[in-house]
Amino acid sequence: MYYVGIDLGGTNIAAGLTNKKGEIIRKKSIPTHRDRPYTEIVKDMAGITIKLINEVGIDQKELKYIGIGSPGTPNVQEGTIIYSNNLNFRNAPIKYEMQKYINVPIYVENDANCAALAESVYGSAKGVDHSVTLTFGTGIGAGIVINKRIYSGFNNAASELGHTVIVSEGCQCSCGRKGCWETYASANALIRQTQEVLEQNLDSWIYTLVNGDLSKINGKTIFDAARKDDRLALNIVDTYIGYMSEGITNVINMLQPEIVVVGGGICNEGEYLLKPLREKVYQAMYTKDEVPKTQIKKAQMGNDAGIIGAAMLGEM
Amino acid sequence: MYYVGIDLGGTNIAAGLTNKKGEIIRKKSIPTHRDRPYTEIVKDMAGITIKLINEVGIDQKELKYIGIGSPGTPNVQEGTIIYSNNLNFRNAPIKYEMQKYINVPIYVENDANCAALAESVYGSAKGVDHSVTLTFGTGIGAGIVINKRIYSGFNNAASELGHTVIVSEGCQCSCGRKGCWETYASANALIRQTQEVLEQNLDSWIYTLVNGDLSKINGKTIFDAARKDDRLALNIVDTYIGYMSEGITNVINMLQPEIVVVGGGICNEGEYLLKPLREKVYQAMYTKDEVPKTQIKKAQMGNDAGIIGAAMLGEM
Repeated sequence: MYYVGIDLGGTNIAAGLTNKKGEIIRKKSIPTHRDRPYTEIVKDMAGITIKLINEVGIDQKELKYIGIGSPGTPNVQEGTIIYSNNLNFRNAPIKYEMQKYINVPIYVENDANCAALAESVYGSAKGVDHSVTLTFGTGIGAGIVINKRIYSGFNNAASELGHTVIVSEGCQCSCGRKGCWETYASANALIRQTQEVLEQNLDSWIYTLVNGDLSKINGKTIFDAARKDDRLALNIVDTYIGYMSEGITNVINMLQPEIVVVGGGICNEGEYLLKPLREKVYQAMYTKDEVPKTQIKKAQMGNDAGIIGAAMLGEM
Repeated sequence: MYYVGIDLGGTNIAAGLTNKKGEIIRKKSIPTHRDRPYTEIVKDMAGITIKLINEVGIDQKELKYIGIGSPGTPNVQEGTIIYSNNLNFRNAPIKYEMQKYINVPIYVENDANCAALAESVYGSAKGVDHSVTLTFGTGIGAGIVINKRIYSGFNNAASELGHTVIVSEGCQCSCGRKGCWETYASANALIRQTQEVLEQNLDSWIYTLVNGDLSKINGKTIFDAARKDDRLALNIVDTYIGYMSEGITNVINMLQPEIVVVGGGICNEGEYLLKPLREKVYQAMYTKDEVPKTQIKKAQMGNDAGIIGAAMLGEM
């Protein structure tokens, strides 16, 4: 049997045909055009799925189900998206609409939960019962896996770790609160923090890397400058890792997962990021040396995590 | 069959004999004298248990098991306390030691987890799958129940919600971090905040209530003054409820339990506390109106929660 996992993003719809082992046989991607009504977006998701199975040359009967990872809060029982800010979905009956085009079982889940499931089954958290997967990007995406299953609370809306406050009355967050973790520790926050520091300091290697155009700064630029021992960049990175560690320590003190998986573009910095991050977390966390420690690992599944996790939804 | 639940506290050892319905038939309490070695404390726990069953007049064969709720991090499989700051326990083999005196099965769990279990099965969170029970006292005790079972992570050390930072670089916490929730929202924090405000302001009803002795302030004093529309007390209570709501909103955004149970002496303020608390949480939380909301309820089990939860450990 085959499976289709769809990673519905604000920019692209990415779909992959997988086998039972979670290996992607073929994948395709088309633009989401996120402002459209859900009916049109679903029509495109069905279209890309049908193209995929036709290109691989399998019969629709060999497709066991389609899993869809979407931004927002799903009703997983009914296969709807109750609310998504990112896609303007309100009680969008994704499953029902999708089955107008392809008559197979449809599973709908939050996209960050799909990524966490993929890491839990095939990635960095393989084999453990409890793990938390974090993606540091525009915001902070998070998925909680407890007893090898996605944990999403009584209303499928849990694991909004990016919206836990670490600085009461701090930076304004898009969610309405002030001081949410993602306003300090997302990749976007790192870029903003860097721009603010550089506006006050002209002596940094970062200027050279972006030809003096601060709008070109990204996470990699800052780490590249730090690796060259640029004083400002070193300070910025140290402060930023401090913010990452504050939230990760909170997660550990609260949930004690066996593994915390760190994903997003920033995780490509590897041990240069993870080593000081672990030091700060292990220094701060409540658990004493007598008790086994949560491991902090780099994500393994990369950009395919959402597709692979979605393709596994019906098997959990 | 009968059950014994022991709530091992820093001040007292409280033990209760319960029936299958979790009703306490008889209970006893003796001082802990917390600085003693675990062997002496366990000897007293065994002694009080034997007295209990003798006084009620049951045979030891009718005792199905003894459950013990202790501060610190247990190894529930082995029945040891790996670490407790409160009792100076390090890898204390409670179960093994206890069975020298009474040969019945022994279960060991963290005390806050026992209280959460009691609320989950018989108290304010009865009937729901996921709940979080918080006790606002010297610190903030917390227990997480997921799928009707205690959740304590891979190392039994989870649910230290009092030690999640809400004010990065804020008040110094006894755990070593700065800005932990309990340094802002425990009952002790409320008293400290009040003393700090009153040292700068002499015009408050609170002075009358404590005859000018700020060391006599407790949570009730402050709420009593607020109910009399004392301006300072109203401000203090509003700020304090703000800190409570910050942490509770974090818990909800992260775990979306169906019910959050609020316990500790402060919960005796009832709706005077809970109504504005709910308003602040519902205003701040990430979940939108389209999604079912976590309920915030007063604890029901009172001081017996620890005993009753411990007495249920073998049945879960």
